[in-house]
Amino acid sequence: MFQHIAEFHDWWSFRKQAHPFHVTQVPLDRLNGWSADRETGTIRHHSGRFFSVEGLEVSTDHAIAEEWSQPIIDQPEAGILGILVKRVRGVPYFLMQAKAEPGNVGVVQLSPTVQATKSNYSRVHQGKAVPYLKHFLAPRRGRILSDVLQSEQGAWFLHKRNRNMIIEVDDVEVLDDFCWLSREQLSELFAVDNLVNMDSRTVLAGYPLPGTSAGTHNDTASLLSWFTEAKSRYRLDRRRIPLNAVKKWVWSPESIRHEDDRFFSVIGVDVVAGNREVTGWSQPLLAPRHRGLVALLTRRVDGQLQVLMRALTQAGTHDIVEIGPTVQCALGNHSEPPAFVEHVLAAPRERILFDTVHSEEGGRFYHAENRYVVVDSGELLDDAGPDFTWMTLPQLAEIARYGNHVNVEARNLLACLIFQPSEGR
Amino acid sequence: MFQHIAEFHDWWSFRKQAHPFHVTQVPLDRLNGWSADRETGTIRHHSGRFFSVEGLEVSTDHAIAEEWSQPIIDQPEAGILGILVKRVRGVPYFLMQAKAEPGNVGVVQLSPTVQATKSNYSRVHQGKAVPYLKHFLAPRRGRILSDVLQSEQGAWFLHKRNRNMIIEVDDVEVLDDFCWLSREQLSELFAVDNLVNMDSRTVLAGYPLPGTSAGTHNDTASLLSWFTEAKSRYRLDRRRIPLNAVKKWVWSPESIRHEDDRFFSVIGVDVVAGNREVTGWSQPLLAPRHRGLVALLTRRVDGQLQVLMRALTQAGTHDIVEIGPTVQCALGNHSEPPAFVEHVLAAPRERILFDTVHSEEGGRFYHAENRYVVVDSGELLDDAGPDFTWMTLPQLAEIARYGNHVNVEARNLLACLIFQPSEGR
Repeated sequence: MFQHIAEFHDWWSFRKQAHPFHVTQVPLDRLNGWSADRETGTIRHHSGRFFSVEGLEVSTDHAIAEEWSQPIIDQPEAGILGILVKRVRGVPYFLMQAKAEPGNVGVVQLSPTVQATKSNYSRVHQGKAVPYLKHFLAPRRGRILSDVLQSEQGAWFLHKRNRNMIIEVDDVEVLDDFCWLSREQLSELFAVDNLVNMDSRTVLAGYPLPGTSAGTHNDTASLLSWFTEAKSRYRLDRRRIPLNAVKKWVWSPESIRHEDDRFFSVIGVDVVAGNREVTGWSQPLLAPRHRGLVALLTRRVDGQLQVLMRALTQAGTHDIVEIGPTVQCALGNHSEPPAFVEHVLAAPRERILFDTVHSEEGGRFYHAENRYVVVDSGELLDDAGPDFTWMTLPQLAEIARYGNHVNVEARNLLACLIFQPSEGR
Repeated sequence: MFQHIAEFHDWWSFRKQAHPFHVTQVPLDRLNGWSADRETGTIRHHSGRFFSVEGLEVSTDHAIAEEWSQPIIDQPEAGILGILVKRVRGVPYFLMQAKAEPGNVGVVQLSPTVQATKSNYSRVHQGKAVPYLKHFLAPRRGRILSDVLQSEQGAWFLHKRNRNMIIEVDDVEVLDDFCWLSREQLSELFAVDNLVNMDSRTVLAGYPLPGTSAGTHNDTASLLSWFTEAKSRYRLDRRRIPLNAVKKWVWSPESIRHEDDRFFSVIGVDVVAGNREVTGWSQPLLAPRHRGLVALLTRRVDGQLQVLMRALTQAGTHDIVEIGPTVQCALGNHSEPPAFVEHVLAAPRERILFDTVHSEEGGRFYHAENRYVVVDSGELLDDAGPDFTWMTLPQLAEIARYGNHVNVEARNLLACLIFQPSEGR
C-alpha cells in the first residue's frame, strides 16, 4: 500500500516500463488470424471466438437520423470485470492492475483486478491463467458488494455486456502489476487524464454510496415510470445486415470509414506484448473520429445533489432506451450541438465539479477519448422535456444495480462522483 | 362500492349475462382475416397487426431437453395493463372490469381497468375507444404507484411484454362492466377459481407491500448476485425458423399439435361478441394440453416469511433466466416430476397457505389453467441447489419493480400473497 500518491506514481512509471508493448497499424485485410467473409464481409477470427465486426441497419424515431446502417462489434459472450476490496482498520482498499491494451492512450492504464473475456478465462488464447480469477467464480468465499451484467457502448457494440463485480476479501498476495489503492487515492487518480480505464470505472460505479438512501417508494416509482414511459414512447428496430451492405461506408484495404469522415473507422493493428497471455497478436479496433463529450448537469435541492439524466437510444442498446448522462455526443459528428451542450461548454470554471479526459476500453477501441464533465447548472431547471429527469445520486446508484438500466457513459460519471471527496456530492 | 361481497357476486352474475359472447372452434385454415404464409407457414393477420404464430428453435443447457423447436406467439408491441386506485377514508379501492375473452374459462373474468394491446388503443380494430385509457397515457394527472414493462409466459410467447401500471386518482365515473373493489374484497376474490384474470394479477403484483423494507444493501447485493450468477452459468440460443419447419409438431387443417400430444396445440376460434370494440372476429389461440402447477415453498425465519425462488429458462424468456416460483410445470409434459413437486403435492392441508386455480390470458390462450399453490415447507431447507434461493416477500416485490427480472408466474403468486390477509404474510 502506498503512503502517498507520489509512491504510486513512481510504481506506475516503473510498471509502464515493464511493459514491452508495441502497436502497429496494419491493413485490415492482412490481420493474422482474422479474415473478412467473402460473401458478407463480416470480419471474424478463424477460431470463431473473441468478437466479429458485422453490419447493422437501424430504424428509430428517437435519434437525429431516422435510418442508418453501420459497422458494429458483436461479442455475444459476457466477460468478467472484477475488483477485489479489502478493509484495513475499516478503510477500503481496491486491488488495481497496470494493464496494457493496444487501443489505450498511453498503452498502460489502471485496470480492474480481473478483466477477462470468456475467451480469456476459458483459455482460447492458450495463454497464462488469469490471476485472481477464482475470487470471481462460484463458489466464492468473499463478500459480494456488487455483481451485475451491465451494458457497454451502444454506438459501437451490439447488445454487449460484461459482468461487473466487486468482492470483499480478507487479504490476497499482491502480484507484479497489481497494487492496493485507497478510496482517497482512487479519487485523486480519477482526476488524471487517461489513467483509470473504462473497465475500472464501470465496476467502481457499483461501489455502495456511504450512508445514503434512495428515498421513498414513491420517489422510485416516479423515476421508474419515467423510464418505462420513454421505452413506450419510442421505437427502435434493428436488423443485422452483411457488413459489406452498410451504406455510406467506404472500404479500403486499410480500413472501413464513413464517407463523410465522421463517427469512426475500423482499423487493424499488430501487437507485440511482453507480459500478456500471448506475446503477439493482430486484431481489428474501432477508432472514433472525434473526442466525445460526456457530461452531467447537477443542481442542489434542499442541500442534496441532483443529476439530470437522459433517456437515450443508440444502435446497440439492449432495450429501446437506457438512462444516459445529460450530454453524450461527439460534437464533430453533429451539424447542430445537442441539448445542453452549451450549458456545459460555457460553464464558468467555478461551476465545474469534475473535468477529466478518460478513454474507453483499449481492447476494442483505438484512442477513444471522452471528456467527462460534471457541471453545477446553477439554476432549478425543472422541465427539460420528457427525455430528461432529475434524480439524486443515491437514486441513480440504486437503479444502476439492476442491469441494462444505466448506460456505461452514465455509470462512468457515477463512478467519478462516488469517488469524489464527499464535499463534492 | 359493495358493502358485502355477496353484492359483488350479484352484480357479477348480472354482468356475465350482459355479455352475449359465443366462441366456436373452427379449422385454423378457415380463420377470417388470418392466413398461413405459403412459404413459411407463419400465421398472420392480413393487417400485419395483433400477433403472429411463428417457429422457434431453442438450444440451451438449462432445460430438460437440450434442443427443441416449437410454435411460439410473436407480439412485439407492448400493450397497457392498467388499474386505477382511489382512496376513501384512507382505504384503497381498485377499479376492476368484467371482461370477456374467447379463451377464458367462464368467458368473463375480472380484469384490469384497462387491458389494451397497442392495436386496441391505436384503433386498428376500428372499434370503440378504450374507456379510462387517458389516465394511463402521458401527460397523466394521477399518482403513479407502479409502472413497469413486464414479461409474460416464456413457454408460449417470444419476448412478450406489457406495460403494467397502477395509477391513483381522485375519483372517476363508474361505467357499466366496471366496479370498485377494496383490498379485502379482492383478497376474497383471489381465492375463487378462474375469476381474477392474469392481467389483473400481474398488475396487482406491483401494488406496494405495506410497511415493509427490502432489507439491507448487502441482502439485496447477494440476491442480485445469485441472479447474475445464474445468467452467467447458462446458455440460451434462439433462432426463428419457419413455422412449418418445427420438428415433432403435426399440422392438420384443425390445429398444430405436438406428436406426443404434449405441451399445447394451436387452434382457431370464431367469436361473436356483444359489447366489444368489434362485434365479431376470428383468431388463433394456444391451447395447453394439461393444467399447470405453479407453486411456492415458504418458510419462516425469525417470524418473517421467506419464499423459495428459482432461476428459470424458457423458450421465450427475454434474458437467459428470469426469477420464477419454486415449481412451474405441467406434470403431463414430464416423464419425471421436477424438483419440489412432491413437497407441494404431498403437503398436508394445514400447511397449504393458498390454493386456487387461475387461468392465463384468454385473449391468447384457450382454457390455460394453472393451479397456484403456496405451501409452508415446514423445514429450514437451506441448500436447494444453485438454481434456487430464499428471499423475503419485500425483497421479491422490490426486484419485481424492475422489468424482466421476475416472471409472470412468480408475479401471479406475489399478487396472491400481497392480497392475502396480512396474517398470511
